[in-house]
Amino acid sequence: MSLNELMPGLLHVASKDDAVDFEAWMQAELRVVESALEVWVPADAPAGLGEAMRYGVLDGGKRLRPLLVLAACQEVGGSREAALRAAVSVELIHAYSLIHDDMPCMDNDVLRRGKPTVHVRYGEAQAMLAGDAMQALAFEVLTPEAGVDPALQARLCALLARSAGHAGMAGGQAIDLASIGMPLDERALRDMHRRKTGALLQASVLMGAACGRCEPRAWDALSDYGAALGLAFQVVDDILDVTQESHTLGKTAGKDLHANKPTYVSVLGLEAARRQAADLRDRAQDALRRSGLAGTATLSQLADMVVERDN
Amino acid sequence: MSLNELMPGLLHVASKDDAVDFEAWMQAELRVVESALEVWVPADAPAGLGEAMRYGVLDGGKRLRPLLVLAACQEVGGSREAALRAAVSVELIHAYSLIHDDMPCMDNDVLRRGKPTVHVRYGEAQAMLAGDAMQALAFEVLTPEAGVDPALQARLCALLARSAGHAGMAGGQAIDLASIGMPLDERALRDMHRRKTGALLQASVLMGAACGRCEPRAWDALSDYGAALGLAFQVVDDILDVTQESHTLGKTAGKDLHANKPTYVSVLGLEAARRQAADLRDRAQDALRRSGLAGTATLSQLADMVVERDN
Repeated sequence: MSLNELMPGLLHVASKDDAVDFEAWMQAELRVVESALEVWVPADAPAGLGEAMRYGVLDGGKRLRPLLVLAACQEVGGSREAALRAAVSVELIHAYSLIHDDMPCMDNDVLRRGKPTVHVRYGEAQAMLAGDAMQALAFEVLTPEAGVDPALQARLCALLARSAGHAGMAGGQAIDLASIGMPLDERALRDMHRRKTGALLQASVLMGAACGRCEPRAWDALSDYGAALGLAFQVVDDILDVTQESHTLGKTAGKDLHANKPTYVSVLGLEAARRQAADLRDRAQDALRRSGLAGTATLSQLADMVVERDN
Repeated sequence: MSLNELMPGLLHVASKDDAVDFEAWMQAELRVVESALEVWVPADAPAGLGEAMRYGVLDGGKRLRPLLVLAACQEVGGSREAALRAAVSVELIHAYSLIHDDMPCMDNDVLRRGKPTVHVRYGEAQAMLAGDAMQALAFEVLTPEAGVDPALQARLCALLARSAGHAGMAGGQAIDLASIGMPLDERALRDMHRRKTGALLQASVLMGAACGRCEPRAWDALSDYGAALGLAFQVVDDILDVTQESHTLGKTAGKDLHANKPTYVSVLGLEAARRQAADLRDRAQDALRRSGLAGTATLSQLADMVVERDN
């Protein structure tokens, strides 16, 4: 079923004028993303699986990855339906990784997005299956029978698979696991975070760009933007882990510190970590200026938001 | 990199004459599948992740799903490179599901393919990550930069995602989990197994068929063949669980019985389960005769093998 049949009206794209008001653009797009997740994450999956999947991904989260997809697609004038599908797919991958990451054999966390974690609510087995099914669903959403050019479907699957797998997110989590109590230097820490968090954030930007025509110069610039923003996100995460309370974060604060995990703050110190975040924001903004794209205001403001956020 | 660059010579397809000797065809194809897995499952994934992934998928298993892909592709004269990629992708999905299924929060099994299970060998966290990374790798293998028509890549991703996810394998496992100690009737049992085991086996046949030109009549017949074979496989699995020893199976025998899980044997009794397996084989063979394909000898012999196996 095409997206327009599923969600009439949601294929409307905010106009360039709308985009000037970043906050209005973001709120409108967040509503679209929530509606799309609501439609595509199945309530009727058997034996409670659908309920666990929906619990793990609906009603929570900053939706940064979907916003990056939608903003990048808009800046290159790409296919709205493809971008919405890509937006949902990256959020499904992100949400599944949180569910698995929170499980007792990994971080053993009980609080996420201000709610009990999925395994606390539904049990470990259902949490593992919900994560597994969400990864499959991400690729299902990317490959509809109609509505998106098949070559673009294949390109989006390729970008998503590489960022989620051994060379990206899963590989970064394996390093994270092995690094507990280890004295990582900044270079090793950067490598871990580029994979663990950076790869999917960068892929979100590139999947959005792939939805339209994007010259090599713009593609490379957006790739650099995504890499800088991805690392900035993680540096800020490490800062917030020690400076914010759990109720602001919606997840357990100080957990990396208590787990004896190396972070930007433990390796560089708080002030140097803050400078690092500011430098990475500058690099992201420089990349946008180099892109040659007519308008990059939305991506620029998303980079500011990543660095200035308090949760 | 194209498959021919990675594995020169492996794109050679057994000729129709070779295929007459099923055993020779199978042994040749099994060597190709092992080589392809060897190439595509990365030894260099970080922090032990690659080692755990390779341990979980290399050197073991019947490789029934890859054989179904390759046989179906051959019968429709399809793209050899696409079929080899599809063969590896279905085996990766199958192997990841076994790793997760064996974990303490699921079946808590310590023996698989005659070896300690992945979580016993590498710990639960690494086992979960290895499974997660293998699911992503399945889609990565299906979406090379060159060598396979992008529209076919998208079609293969679509078939794989649907069979692995909430409507297929993961959904079946959720039902399995919820059915422990429950008095399922035959219909509910069939629904569970169609999803849990049948969906990926059927998808293997259809992914092979998608690699070539396949008329609707042949497609529908192969779909029926895959459905019947998929269910037959599970009925036989249930029979072997109570009639064979662990050392023959390479996994713990009698586990469903001890876990108080409903099986074809517990619901129908041993003799009726055996008749059911024979009926399903007949249905699979009937479907092949209806297909209108010139040659279906290999698929026919695979159906026999599924029913006559002792492990």
